[in-house]
Amino acid sequence: MRYDIAIIGTGPAGLSAAITATIRNKKVLLLGNKNLSEKLEKAHEIQNYLGFPAVKGADLAAAFQRHMDQMGIEITEKRVNAVYAMGDYFALQSGDEMLEASAVILATGVVQGKPLPGENELLGRGVSYCATCDAPLYRGKRAAVIGYSPREEAEAAFLSEVCKEVLYFPTYKEDTHLPEAVKVIREKVTGIESNGQERVVKTAENGYTVDGVFVLREAVAPGQLVPGLEVDGVHVAVNRKMCASIPGVFACGDIVGTPYQYIKAAGEGNVAALSAVAYLDQKERK
Amino acid sequence: MRYDIAIIGTGPAGLSAAITATIRNKKVLLLGNKNLSEKLEKAHEIQNYLGFPAVKGADLAAAFQRHMDQMGIEITEKRVNAVYAMGDYFALQSGDEMLEASAVILATGVVQGKPLPGENELLGRGVSYCATCDAPLYRGKRAAVIGYSPREEAEAAFLSEVCKEVLYFPTYKEDTHLPEAVKVIREKVTGIESNGQERVVKTAENGYTVDGVFVLREAVAPGQLVPGLEVDGVHVAVNRKMCASIPGVFACGDIVGTPYQYIKAAGEGNVAALSAVAYLDQKERK
Repeated sequence: MRYDIAIIGTGPAGLSAAITATIRNKKVLLLGNKNLSEKLEKAHEIQNYLGFPAVKGADLAAAFQRHMDQMGIEITEKRVNAVYAMGDYFALQSGDEMLEASAVILATGVVQGKPLPGENELLGRGVSYCATCDAPLYRGKRAAVIGYSPREEAEAAFLSEVCKEVLYFPTYKEDTHLPEAVKVIREKVTGIESNGQERVVKTAENGYTVDGVFVLREAVAPGQLVPGLEVDGVHVAVNRKMCASIPGVFACGDIVGTPYQYIKAAGEGNVAALSAVAYLDQKERK
Repeated sequence: MRYDIAIIGTGPAGLSAAITATIRNKKVLLLGNKNLSEKLEKAHEIQNYLGFPAVKGADLAAAFQRHMDQMGIEITEKRVNAVYAMGDYFALQSGDEMLEASAVILATGVVQGKPLPGENELLGRGVSYCATCDAPLYRGKRAAVIGYSPREEAEAAFLSEVCKEVLYFPTYKEDTHLPEAVKVIREKVTGIESNGQERVVKTAENGYTVDGVFVLREAVAPGQLVPGLEVDGVHVAVNRKMCASIPGVFACGDIVGTPYQYIKAAGEGNVAALSAVAYLDQKERK
């Protein structure tokens, strides 16, 4: 099954893109979270989303959800680890599954903050962003998970079924809900180091030696998500039509730059979708 | 009295800019029409303004109005004839009056050229400017498209996926590239008439009865509004921050280019306002 357009992200940019692409009769795969966007959900009050004066984030999210429901657009809860340009189409790696689409819209939001010291250097050598993909490498071994949101706890729980030992470092304050086998460590992670075959999660207080470290953030840096994509710092480089450097790849919302505003993201999602539609139509005519 | 920011236009772009500039404590002069936008007011149904599923143009306009009311933003009903860059500020000529502002946001929409006889009268009642918006109204029905440039053929092709019959009236001489389902009629359109629930596209030779007529123009007439401003065809040239070629001039919405979509315009209004705020803040620091 090959989709026309895969949209990655369910914030305002991704939802807006999904709506317009659906109106234009494209087969859309919308990947993200059923509760849309954690950032939006938690916003106290939004004053400048035109048409919704002084609206709570949760209420705006509910309005968005009604819009999706009314159009019959469903969200697929899969995390995309990488997007590969295959020439005629794109392969989206999600765990050990490959999804296919003729065009891709990136709407994953922006990675807040810098990578941890050592993270970039050790990526793919004991540091991973994907528990589903790489858990088998650590069967019967020790793993650490640095979780940036409660949503990552499911990944840690899964790892505990495979690994001998799982340490979980939440970067958030909420209570964790994890199996007993997972050891929660509430210390600030300061970096990841290499020690021969082992990896060490450094905190302000201690060092924890493991075999593999999983860094699980809401969004992956765009250059890592789509190898070869032109980036501008933490953002994807796009033109005013929201076209990224790889033909068939479009981007919208916070991932393409400031200002980080909901209405700006929604507007860009619309533009990205129409550009993707034009790209597909042109491809068909060739 | 010198305003911080004069915003010209009360469509979604201008309103969105006004809201964000007001939140940022700028003295805003919003120039336009108390009934906001005629185009919006008359839109049958808008499907892709995220948060408002299948909303009538008039209802969306009412929601925008409530937003303005809630924030105490008023509209000044003055037509601006020209904007002059005076060095430190801008002079806006309105009839024989001169208004002053330190920055200007252009959100006047795009000039649609001379209307066809019957076009204005039937707009919103069987005549539409937006295939993406209004195609669903003509599902399984007959539509006519009056296309002013080859670029509009994609819209006709899209309509043919939805409608039972699509007639295409090119106003240009180039060959058309359209699906077989679209019937090309090379006759000069002289007007649009109403016949009960049906609409008739009149040509010099014949009358063609359909359910809906799409008038799709390459927008006309550039901004003679701001002498010296760099334009791109009928549009104002802007960068991704919505800055035009003259420092202190910003533009957003249809005036800066396609797609002509409400949510895109609202998003750009937000960006233009924040860019204007940054411009003023920087100027103050000097």
